[in-house]
Amino acid sequence: MSLARRLVAEALGTGLLVCAVVGSGIMAESLTDDVALALLGNTLPTGAILVVLITCLGPVSGAHFNPAVTLAFAVRRHAPWREVGPYIAVQILGGIAGALLAHGMFDLSLLQTATKIRTGGPQWLAEIVATFGLVFTIFAGLKQAPAAIPWLVGLYITAAYWFTASTSFANPAVAIARSFTDTFSGIRPFDLPGFVLAQVVGALIGVVVAGWLFAADTPQEPPA
Amino acid sequence: MSLARRLVAEALGTGLLVCAVVGSGIMAESLTDDVALALLGNTLPTGAILVVLITCLGPVSGAHFNPAVTLAFAVRRHAPWREVGPYIAVQILGGIAGALLAHGMFDLSLLQTATKIRTGGPQWLAEIVATFGLVFTIFAGLKQAPAAIPWLVGLYITAAYWFTASTSFANPAVAIARSFTDTFSGIRPFDLPGFVLAQVVGALIGVVVAGWLFAADTPQEPPA
Amino acid sequence: MSLARRLVAEALGTGLLVCAVVGSGIMAESLTDDVALALLGNTLPTGAILVVLITCLGPVSGAHFNPAVTLAFAVRRHAPWREVGPYIAVQILGGIAGALLAHGMFDLSLLQTATKIRTGGPQWLAEIVATFGLVFTIFAGLKQAPAAIPWLVGLYITAAYWFTASTSFANPAVAIARSFTDTFSGIRPFDLPGFVLAQVVGALIGVVVAGWLFAADTPQEPPA
Amino acid sequence: MSLARRLVAEALGTGLLVCAVVGSGIMAESLTDDVALALLGNTLPTGAILVVLITCLGPVSGAHFNPAVTLAFAVRRHAPWREVGPYIAVQILGGIAGALLAHGMFDLSLLQTATKIRTGGPQWLAEIVATFGLVFTIFAGLKQAPAAIPWLVGLYITAAYWFTASTSFANPAVAIARSFTDTFSGIRPFDLPGFVLAQVVGALIGVVVAGWLFAADTPQEPPA
Repeated sequence: MSLARRLVAEALGTGLLVCAVVGSGIMAESLTDDVALALLGNTLPTGAILVVLITCLGPVSGAHFNPAVTLAFAVRRHAPWREVGPYIAVQILGGIAGALLAHGMFDLSLLQTATKIRTGGPQWLAEIVATFGLVFTIFAGLKQAPAAIPWLVGLYITAAYWFTASTSFANPAVAIARSFTDTFSGIRPFDLPGFVLAQVVGALIGVVVAGWLFAADTPQEPPA
Repeated sequence: MSLARRLVAEALGTGLLVCAVVGSGIMAESLTDDVALALLGNTLPTGAILVVLITCLGPVSGAHFNPAVTLAFAVRRHAPWREVGPYIAVQILGGIAGALLAHGMFDLSLLQTATKIRTGGPQWLAEIVATFGLVFTIFAGLKQAPAAIPWLVGLYITAAYWFTASTSFANPAVAIARSFTDTFSGIRPFDLPGFVLAQVVGALIGVVVAGWLFAADTPQEPPA
Repeated sequence: MSLARRLVAEALGTGLLVCAVVGSGIMAESLTDDVALALLGNTLPTGAILVVLITCLGPVSGAHFNPAVTLAFAVRRHAPWREVGPYIAVQILGGIAGALLAHGMFDLSLLQTATKIRTGGPQWLAEIVATFGLVFTIFAGLKQAPAAIPWLVGLYITAAYWFTASTSFANPAVAIARSFTDTFSGIRPFDLPGFVLAQVVGALIGVVVAGWLFAADTPQEPPA
Repeated sequence: MSLARRLVAEALGTGLLVCAVVGSGIMAESLTDDVALALLGNTLPTGAILVVLITCLGPVSGAHFNPAVTLAFAVRRHAPWREVGPYIAVQILGGIAGALLAHGMFDLSLLQTATKIRTGGPQWLAEIVATFGLVFTIFAGLKQAPAAIPWLVGLYITAAYWFTASTSFANPAVAIARSFTDTFSGIRPFDLPGFVLAQVVGALIGVVVAGWLFAADTPQEPPA
């Protein structure tokens, strides 16, 4: 697969993912005053589109859609370091385009700046946990059930939207794109560095823990 | 499979799909005042029945249930042009019958005309995005995971109900059938041409993008 | 598999199914005043437990849990006529036990008689449609994707709870058992004959339509 | 797989499971006043994370995450008795750590003692039913569809959250961990013995029923 096709796949996938996250947030918030119901209306589309996008684009680009995942793959030598830069660049650009597309569909100003505050130790801890879990899930899936990875990631994010206090951004490119929307799923640009740093830390912990737990040199027993 | 069986399968499938869309909309709207909850009660049955119908009828007729999909298949030579007319005709007739059946079950006037306004640039953009995504998902699925297509389509529509501002009709036959119901899922007949045109445009964009991204002459690498 | 084991499997499966239907209805109704939300809290457990029970007990007894399905299988010679009586008997007894078990867990009177009125042409039409769809789904699944049947049935019932006006009983044994609970999912004993008759009619239509559409003597083409 | 790796997998899996149960309960309760909606926001993450964790860690440790399951496996000789102690110890420790981690993410006091009363015959009956069903599902899955076990357990718990009056703890380690949180999912320490005893009884009934129904010496027929 040529690098051009792979970069288009990463941009398209991240764009549709952000479009789903931002768009469903706008839809949900506009239809109900119950925030739990709004979060549910934000969760289901996000989990569902992840299964679809990873199945469709995984064989093209690996379906990272996420700089933290690209970084983790590079650290584990699943992806070449020279492609990390281009991958991250198109993930960010695609993600921003996805936010703008959602605004266009819902007849909102295309260019917005988020004002929702998401900061502080507990939020950063939540992002560390969220991204650790995501990267751990992906490496575990690659080891145990590669064909199930689209489902594993979709289900993991479905769960993490609710059990992490930050609703699990777990993705620097998506976080940056969400700073471009002043709606349900937004994050104040000022709060991005803390989130991105926490995500990178979580991803690296995921790499280390999965690396140890699924070390290839250990002969494997069948499940009990 | 004889053409007669295939046309019956398309009519039956589109009919049950519309019956599920319209019927669950009526049920949901009658049970709650919260519109997000009503949309959720409309989304889950639609996604679920799509998985069932495509699994059951895919091997018979291809399980298009959708003129935009039939058109896209004809453009890509997956379906013969001479069958496009009959397929679309039975999809529309089956769909209308499905709406009437839903009315009958809920004790409403069988023949209705929708009054819900769905028009304007943002709505048309939403239908372009919705149908692009649907056609892209189908062609990607055919390439990457044919057996997963029922799930991919069900999950895609589950997501698109929420992230597109139009709640993702993405189907000219279903749109026409939904102009026959003045309930939750209706669309004013006057607004049909805009929706159908947008759907055809979206489908063709899907054909082009998928055609380029999944070009058969490109040797494929395994996912990272 | 001995007949004794098969009958225990049918009784256990139908009992747990009814326990899930009745129990989740009690739980949901006790936690919210929003009826759509209560129906959602009734739908998800029903769909989920069906996937589990059919996967677990299908290889033992066929996992009918439903006299209409047993009848349809006998008509199509998938099950011997001499077993229809015993199957239906244990399905009904197991189902009633399941309702009582739910009452016990929720600290309600064990023996109850339903007062919820479910009658009239539209309700009967809904049960015809619901049971037609169930039987059609099962026969289609046997033809196209036997391993997927637990999912197909679970998803079909998830959808049919919402798109049929009767919330899709589609099962005479479950209907009888639900006449023993005066809670969310109950049905007045007086209304049982209409429901059961409609269910049998729907099942037979399903047998005929599936029999024609999936006739074995037709050479099959691959899906488009 | 070394015992050290297996114990880390059990601790990590039980910890993330409890973190998901407790965290999503806190999130849900903080966003809505509707208790059914809160339970839904607690159910979906629990079911989803179970599918993920069992898929990821099943091949490492068996993915018990549950002393009742470890006990049942030991009784059936699927696990050695000498490992029962260590498994249960790390499940409890991991579970408590998971509760504390959820508290940290939501900026709550790390150390809490639950005050929610969960006691009495109907609650104990519910736990017997819940744990019976869980153990039955696992043994049935091992017999009929081992690869589907993550889904079967996730779906079973999704259902049992609603149809058992106790919301289906079904797990002594998770119950103990939930006594460390005074939030939505808590249980008063005083009520633990009743729950744990009921869970052990339910698990043993599951062992007996599954043992008889799926006895290996019975030649198996294909499903009807």
